[in-house]
Amino acid sequence: MDPAAFADSVRADAAGWDRHGGVPPEVVRAVARAGFLAADVPARYGGRDSSPAEVGRLCAVFGGTCSALRALVTVQGMVAAAVLRWGDAGQRDRWLPALTSGDRLAGFAATEAGAGSDLAAVGATLEAGRLRGRKLWVTFGGLADVFLVLASRGGRPVAVLVEAGPGVVVEPVTGQLGMRAARIAHVRFDDVPVAEVLAPPGFGLSHVVGTALDHGRFTVAWGCAGLAGACLDLTAGHVAARAQGGTALSEHQAVRAVLGRCLVEVRAARQLCAHAAALRERGDPEALHETVLAKYGAARAASVVAGHAVRLHGAAGVDADSTVGRFHRDAAVMRIIEGSDEVAEQHLGRYALRGGS
Amino acid sequence: MDPAAFADSVRADAAGWDRHGGVPPEVVRAVARAGFLAADVPARYGGRDSSPAEVGRLCAVFGGTCSALRALVTVQGMVAAAVLRWGDAGQRDRWLPALTSGDRLAGFAATEAGAGSDLAAVGATLEAGRLRGRKLWVTFGGLADVFLVLASRGGRPVAVLVEAGPGVVVEPVTGQLGMRAARIAHVRFDDVPVAEVLAPPGFGLSHVVGTALDHGRFTVAWGCAGLAGACLDLTAGHVAARAQGGTALSEHQAVRAVLGRCLVEVRAARQLCAHAAALRERGDPEALHETVLAKYGAARAASVVAGHAVRLHGAAGVDADSTVGRFHRDAAVMRIIEGSDEVAEQHLGRYALRGGS
Amino acid sequence: MDPAAFADSVRADAAGWDRHGGVPPEVVRAVARAGFLAADVPARYGGRDSSPAEVGRLCAVFGGTCSALRALVTVQGMVAAAVLRWGDAGQRDRWLPALTSGDRLAGFAATEAGAGSDLAAVGATLEAGRLRGRKLWVTFGGLADVFLVLASRGGRPVAVLVEAGPGVVVEPVTGQLGMRAARIAHVRFDDVPVAEVLAPPGFGLSHVVGTALDHGRFTVAWGCAGLAGACLDLTAGHVAARAQGGTALSEHQAVRAVLGRCLVEVRAARQLCAHAAALRERGDPEALHETVLAKYGAARAASVVAGHAVRLHGAAGVDADSTVGRFHRDAAVMRIIEGSDEVAEQHLGRYALRGGS
Amino acid sequence: MDPAAFADSVRADAAGWDRHGGVPPEVVRAVARAGFLAADVPARYGGRDSSPAEVGRLCAVFGGTCSALRALVTVQGMVAAAVLRWGDAGQRDRWLPALTSGDRLAGFAATEAGAGSDLAAVGATLEAGRLRGRKLWVTFGGLADVFLVLASRGGRPVAVLVEAGPGVVVEPVTGQLGMRAARIAHVRFDDVPVAEVLAPPGFGLSHVVGTALDHGRFTVAWGCAGLAGACLDLTAGHVAARAQGGTALSEHQAVRAVLGRCLVEVRAARQLCAHAAALRERGDPEALHETVLAKYGAARAASVVAGHAVRLHGAAGVDADSTVGRFHRDAAVMRIIEGSDEVAEQHLGRYALRGGS
Repeated sequence: MDPAAFADSVRADAAGWDRHGGVPPEVVRAVARAGFLAADVPARYGGRDSSPAEVGRLCAVFGGTCSALRALVTVQGMVAAAVLRWGDAGQRDRWLPALTSGDRLAGFAATEAGAGSDLAAVGATLEAGRLRGRKLWVTFGGLADVFLVLASRGGRPVAVLVEAGPGVVVEPVTGQLGMRAARIAHVRFDDVPVAEVLAPPGFGLSHVVGTALDHGRFTVAWGCAGLAGACLDLTAGHVAARAQGGTALSEHQAVRAVLGRCLVEVRAARQLCAHAAALRERGDPEALHETVLAKYGAARAASVVAGHAVRLHGAAGVDADSTVGRFHRDAAVMRIIEGSDEVAEQHLGRYALRGGS
Repeated sequence: MDPAAFADSVRADAAGWDRHGGVPPEVVRAVARAGFLAADVPARYGGRDSSPAEVGRLCAVFGGTCSALRALVTVQGMVAAAVLRWGDAGQRDRWLPALTSGDRLAGFAATEAGAGSDLAAVGATLEAGRLRGRKLWVTFGGLADVFLVLASRGGRPVAVLVEAGPGVVVEPVTGQLGMRAARIAHVRFDDVPVAEVLAPPGFGLSHVVGTALDHGRFTVAWGCAGLAGACLDLTAGHVAARAQGGTALSEHQAVRAVLGRCLVEVRAARQLCAHAAALRERGDPEALHETVLAKYGAARAASVVAGHAVRLHGAAGVDADSTVGRFHRDAAVMRIIEGSDEVAEQHLGRYALRGGS
Repeated sequence: MDPAAFADSVRADAAGWDRHGGVPPEVVRAVARAGFLAADVPARYGGRDSSPAEVGRLCAVFGGTCSALRALVTVQGMVAAAVLRWGDAGQRDRWLPALTSGDRLAGFAATEAGAGSDLAAVGATLEAGRLRGRKLWVTFGGLADVFLVLASRGGRPVAVLVEAGPGVVVEPVTGQLGMRAARIAHVRFDDVPVAEVLAPPGFGLSHVVGTALDHGRFTVAWGCAGLAGACLDLTAGHVAARAQGGTALSEHQAVRAVLGRCLVEVRAARQLCAHAAALRERGDPEALHETVLAKYGAARAASVVAGHAVRLHGAAGVDADSTVGRFHRDAAVMRIIEGSDEVAEQHLGRYALRGGS
Repeated sequence: MDPAAFADSVRADAAGWDRHGGVPPEVVRAVARAGFLAADVPARYGGRDSSPAEVGRLCAVFGGTCSALRALVTVQGMVAAAVLRWGDAGQRDRWLPALTSGDRLAGFAATEAGAGSDLAAVGATLEAGRLRGRKLWVTFGGLADVFLVLASRGGRPVAVLVEAGPGVVVEPVTGQLGMRAARIAHVRFDDVPVAEVLAPPGFGLSHVVGTALDHGRFTVAWGCAGLAGACLDLTAGHVAARAQGGTALSEHQAVRAVLGRCLVEVRAARQLCAHAAALRERGDPEALHETVLAKYGAARAASVVAGHAVRLHGAAGVDADSTVGRFHRDAAVMRIIEGSDEVAEQHLGRYALRGGS
């Protein structure tokens, strides 16, 4: 199914998901059936061999519809990417078909209380094959069947897969600023057996989690580009339709100037994402950095354009049903997740010093 | 009572009001008892003869605590200012003591569907002393006893006071982006007798509503300055307390640079407000324009600083209980009400052309 | 010859050209000999069939070396594009070989006193095959052999080619803010015979000049992207080499954050240009608008990055020999020529309203 | 004499000074005779007891006329402030009357090669009462009779006064980006006897130079506010006078919006300066920080407004005679001197962490 057609079929429901309870399980299953989950996994594991650009376009379409749908694609893709890259043959065979088909929904559980983006401060422990710890802000943690968890074994970081079940306690997060439909949860693991250990000890953070985050940034970047584009389209539609003093808002130079500035933001965000996709496609070693760049740039664009969109919508941007209002709240979250602006600027500054321009 | 002491006494409740139901009536009464409503009205009408700077400081304190409390002060002040300036002696005597004491809570009902900031497109009509029409986004409309309504009589704008009662139907607004505790409502007037007509026909918009909006902008400006300042203080506290990798966030240059930029925004917002207050105090004819300037500048500062605050708070900025998260949503509204950025820029551009720098 | 190699061969001279007298004629001839002029003209007219992307890369390299060299490529390309698109077979045969070989240097003479970007206000007249008028800010007007001039014949705009010679009076412009080496001149035409009339009367402005300006924007956009990139590279080099208090400037987070922001500007500018090039390559009808977008975005990026570059260079950015100081002055000009920010924003706002996102 | 009247009397000459040779000695003498130098020094030393706000207004007027004139006031004021605060009674008697009367022009010589804003890296040495070293970027070094020099004696910073004369070699700086009329020079001291040592060893940097820089930032801040205001006034005048397509530029919403944004920058800059002045006036210990804030904010405003001014002037902003073009070059320098943006942001970030909002 075409992503745009799917998006159209659920667009009217997104505000309701945001207000109450999140993306329903049947919609998650429909996303899975349409082949949108972990689509870049090779066909032999049930994936679609989608290119980075194809995954990107999917995320842009979903990002312009419902940030939670985009987040679903993000998290499933992150875990699948980590298994594909760092799992052994058996692990790939056991898990990838279930992830690509959506038979198993994945959660990515890395953040802990008080640690923020400092993932190295891991309190969760793996001892004798059993996991103890509490992880925060697990996207789709409320529906996940399996979690990729960053833990510490003997003082070294290790990444494990843990299945939902006894000892895995899910505490749904509600009322947060944005991404309210993404079934975010805090998850406690109370002496739970781990299904798999991915990669040797010591590789858990820099390699396994690193792969997942890189994939996550790529999809978030495209989602932001889509969100920004949708904000502009909705705003262009609003100002063209809305008259004031007998003149359409779009006839005011002051309004058109804002639209013009927004278009440049949207285009730049999209092109930064396309550039990252092209580098990923050809396996360029700079792709990691260009993905950080695309995510940073697109998240800023999303935030800027959503702010203009709310303002140009006036009351219609503030209203409970407002799509641009929802995107404005979501966009604030985008500038934090997978590396805040400040973290990205340091990364990119070092990249520039190495000649990355 | 000192505004800061009052603010401290309710600070912990503001998030709850935002989440559920709005500012409670007993808190509104406490605000009134403390003498915070329409405090700039002369003492002979029960006011406190507060100077613009004193009203401003009150609004800054409230704006840094709860936007809805600040909005309560705003709307009561707007209606009182209109009555004081444009009411005749009898009207002033009948209404001002009730407004300053809080015996009567006021709503300001000007906006209509499809009209936005174009207040000249008035659909509400006054015929034979009876009002018909529907007004949107009436702050504290849910608790108001009396409404200042912009209507049309024989094709000319007229401003009237209408009491709540039979025929006045209040439809509470919920779930909006920001200012959720301000008991905003849409209000329908179905053939309701008007209590007072303020000023001659033809003066309703440019004069009566103009006076109210000028007063409103002044208080919103100060509220924004306070909101921005509170965001900075909360963020400074957060980054000083929060360690990552063994180092307080505040030890990172990249974090301090953001704080530095925020401080400049906060100080500029405050000083623009102080300048507007000084001009109002001495009756300078440019005070109207400088108030537009202060509101525009302070609302932008609030929006910018709140965005930084949410980001530097990380998850704590996104959480349902987050004060900066709430302020971030409120700030988006501030850039729309009483004249959006675009409207203000045109106003200020014309002012600059007349030599207003 | 490779553009980068050519650029390296003259890089050390650019500051001197800027200070005194402009690009020397022998360097202009070397640029021509290297095949850099009007390289996108078909080979049958002496061009190189260069793709838009190839022309773009040339302009980026030159833009990061010397804005006047880039301007030379711009103006020759503008006039050649106009002749190629709107000239008849004979005109193409007569002029294109001379333009591609550099045997004839072209000037583009459209702007008049008091008209600015309002090209419709044409004072120059063509009567009985003779031209009268005065044109301003003609890039490389000081060396040009032939001018593409916008004039009015019987009240309708007409574009003509006029050769330098008796009656063509060149007044060099000196001391201007930026682009000082581009041999800019005001040019007076006193009853001069025209060599060619391009396109039918009425087509002169919208079609002939429109084609030239579109080509000009494309090359300026790439030049700006190159200028921004060069500013970043120079700054990265400076802060890595320069120690303060025993620590390289590049070790300061505050400095790295600025580099990171600059890198995003540089990358976005480049990708906007690449997008415009791709659309031009495949003849997409939106290419015109995307070129406006790229020029606007890249000129802003150039201006922003050059500002940071000067500041991070400190005294070395202010010094008379400073490359980034020169680029900073040039960048201010880029936000004016071929359509200022304000003109572009209106263009892009209308494009967005037509669904251009 | 009124500063504005004086400024008017020389306004037409400023462009010429910028182009050739700098402020002439006779104009410097006229500034001195008018009582504009070190005017805040007590009357008993020949000063005028001017308040901070009065000095500020003078600098704003000069800053909106000629940055070099403002710089003259700055440097004389810096040295006088250092002598007044750290000199003993004899030193004050010997030097202040000459500084306030302008009989002696002062230079402030702190920066050295390779050190930039790291003043602690002092290479100049004081041994047996004789000074050796080379100082860079000494404003009005080309006319100075006496220099306040930061040197090192036995490894500890010391501030000395040195008179021009044998062994003091002045190398004029020319062609720099901005502030070209300020007779900036590099100055070499070859075994020169020092006239005075101010304050005990160890106080030279943190105390003597600190006092001078604080005074310098205050005057630069006001100069920037004046420069920004002048740019806006000139631009408002330009767009009102200049028609395009039969319509004054000022009639375009897009132009007015820029003017509106500029006005807010100008007003905020001015009010930040006024706030710093008020704190200085009452000896508030936070005045130092608020002065850093004002300088940072005003320099940014100057840079932003000058950029808009050049663009809205179009060709008239690029022209050699353009006042806004000159101010644009000057403004770039303002964001470096007396502490660049990056240095100020760190300072202000620390101030915010201490509760400075």
